[in-house]
Amino acid sequence: MTTPSADARAAATERLAALATPPGALGRLGDLAVWVAACQGQVPPAPVDSVRLVIFAGDHGVAGHGVSAFPPAITGAMVRTFLLGKAGVSALADAHGVAVRVLDLGVDEDFADLPDDVRSALTAHKVRRGSGAIHLEDALTADETHAALEAGAAVAHEEIAAGAQLLISGDMGIGNTTPAAALVAAGLGVPASEVVGRGTGIDDAALLHKTTVIDAALVRAGARTDDPVETLAALGSADLAASTGFLLTAAREGVPVLLDGLMSVACALTADRIAPGAAQWFAAGHRSTEPAQSLALSKLGLEPLLDLGLRLGEGSGAVAAVPVVRSATALLRDVALLSELGV
Amino acid sequence: MTTPSADARAAATERLAALATPPGALGRLGDLAVWVAACQGQVPPAPVDSVRLVIFAGDHGVAGHGVSAFPPAITGAMVRTFLLGKAGVSALADAHGVAVRVLDLGVDEDFADLPDDVRSALTAHKVRRGSGAIHLEDALTADETHAALEAGAAVAHEEIAAGAQLLISGDMGIGNTTPAAALVAAGLGVPASEVVGRGTGIDDAALLHKTTVIDAALVRAGARTDDPVETLAALGSADLAASTGFLLTAAREGVPVLLDGLMSVACALTADRIAPGAAQWFAAGHRSTEPAQSLALSKLGLEPLLDLGLRLGEGSGAVAAVPVVRSATALLRDVALLSELGV
Repeated sequence: MTTPSADARAAATERLAALATPPGALGRLGDLAVWVAACQGQVPPAPVDSVRLVIFAGDHGVAGHGVSAFPPAITGAMVRTFLLGKAGVSALADAHGVAVRVLDLGVDEDFADLPDDVRSALTAHKVRRGSGAIHLEDALTADETHAALEAGAAVAHEEIAAGAQLLISGDMGIGNTTPAAALVAAGLGVPASEVVGRGTGIDDAALLHKTTVIDAALVRAGARTDDPVETLAALGSADLAASTGFLLTAAREGVPVLLDGLMSVACALTADRIAPGAAQWFAAGHRSTEPAQSLALSKLGLEPLLDLGLRLGEGSGAVAAVPVVRSATALLRDVALLSELGV
Repeated sequence: MTTPSADARAAATERLAALATPPGALGRLGDLAVWVAACQGQVPPAPVDSVRLVIFAGDHGVAGHGVSAFPPAITGAMVRTFLLGKAGVSALADAHGVAVRVLDLGVDEDFADLPDDVRSALTAHKVRRGSGAIHLEDALTADETHAALEAGAAVAHEEIAAGAQLLISGDMGIGNTTPAAALVAAGLGVPASEVVGRGTGIDDAALLHKTTVIDAALVRAGARTDDPVETLAALGSADLAASTGFLLTAAREGVPVLLDGLMSVACALTADRIAPGAAQWFAAGHRSTEPAQSLALSKLGLEPLLDLGLRLGEGSGAVAAVPVVRSATALLRDVALLSELGV
């Protein structure tokens, strides 16, 4: 695993200290600007104009087992809403100049009503219809897991070739906080009770049931969770495995990533298990209301930029945080040096 | 004091609940969008394109008495840096499309080196050279206080006439956290020890001294702090009084304000004392590292949007938070209603 440039980091730190601002006055924006410069390997960093979000969509067998406030059919409906540009993340992406791409990795329908070109782009990397109900069976076969990781890698290469300076992985899939929380529990070695959250808004009874589903999945997976790729097969899904491959490839290619909520961070944790050090290329966009997201961020040593009580998914929290990254780079680029002012 | 539209607030709340997002999933962005709609009196709210920052600059007699890490001459140097567009807030304002205007209300120099047109625009509302050292004397006479409040009001009217949909007050003035903290202490009835902070970075000894300066100022002002305008005269400054008039006029004219750090919030607290209810027109951009800012925000019932450890002043924290306001309005404007999707 390559690392962000230590030389650029040192030069950026030096430039930060030389700006016509009191020492430390830029707070976390200063630290963030140094990280961007280190990732880019240049000081001052280039403006982060090209930000690209890929939403990995898929259904989850557990969604048929009482772990979500919404029925699985919503997954496909929301995919259509992304294609229309009318979802929550669409509005945020338009506001902040972020390119959005949605991919069906494992939605449990065929989108037969969509025009051929739209459907073929949407499903170009599809692995299967729905992933397994993880408390009862593996989410994916070994081949499917490999295919999904490769799909995410291919998509990352495409987005980087399109000029991405910052990548974001988003998610859509009813039930997805259950496998994502299971990935975090497996990755951190903690029980279901520590990672379970309310997702889109389940009640206390459903929360208790969701806990037992995650616990059953962890018991079923057993010692296979020692291996991160086996963990994806046992407890993940096609969309989560693809997102993991996407984040892993961004890190390997040296392109910084702004993480979103639980799904994005669970995949980041898994990517960092596969390739230790990958998280050096990741920053955390926002704090989700899901406890597993905070636990995984702590493990990765990341502190979110925003904490606004968002629990929308889709990549929305990361997209909302993009202007914070732009604030940081603007400061390190455009503020006068004290030496230039002749004070 | 006029209030944001209750009808628009109700309609915005209804629209928020009807969006194709899970209930509550937009977190504080949903609340913020409802507030913008209520301030604008329309649903959905218009995009907040025109954001205008006015930086009120001035010197403070206390700066000659060991309360700051920097010498008073920095105030004028930083005013010149704003005019060059090379300060911290300049970089942020460029990045986020915010108009910046800097005004000398009480800087302790004449800017004789500047071109006539630049100097006359900068000093058009100047009240005096430097404000009084508040532990020894009043900051301003009654006439000067009145003139500064009127100056701020006139500037607000100008900015509103220029199309401002959101206003921000920024500050520049070595030593200004001392009078600002004194305004907060007086407004809340708390001792200096609860409001004092490190400003641009003073050490423990200077912090202790700053506390005694604020305490002495509060003792000197005595019961005059029961009146908010008298408080500005005794403990404020020309720039803080003008900023107060600016915020008060924004509220009276029904234009929303995004507050910045301690100076902005101390003036917002004072404006709300002069005209109770003014704070309904204010949102808090960021949490400063100054304890007085958090205390005053709590009193006003405001929770900051960002918490990034910024302590730059200049309006920078509010400008960095402008994209959060734009995220909020974009969501309430552009996300599909569930009823439109035929789900």
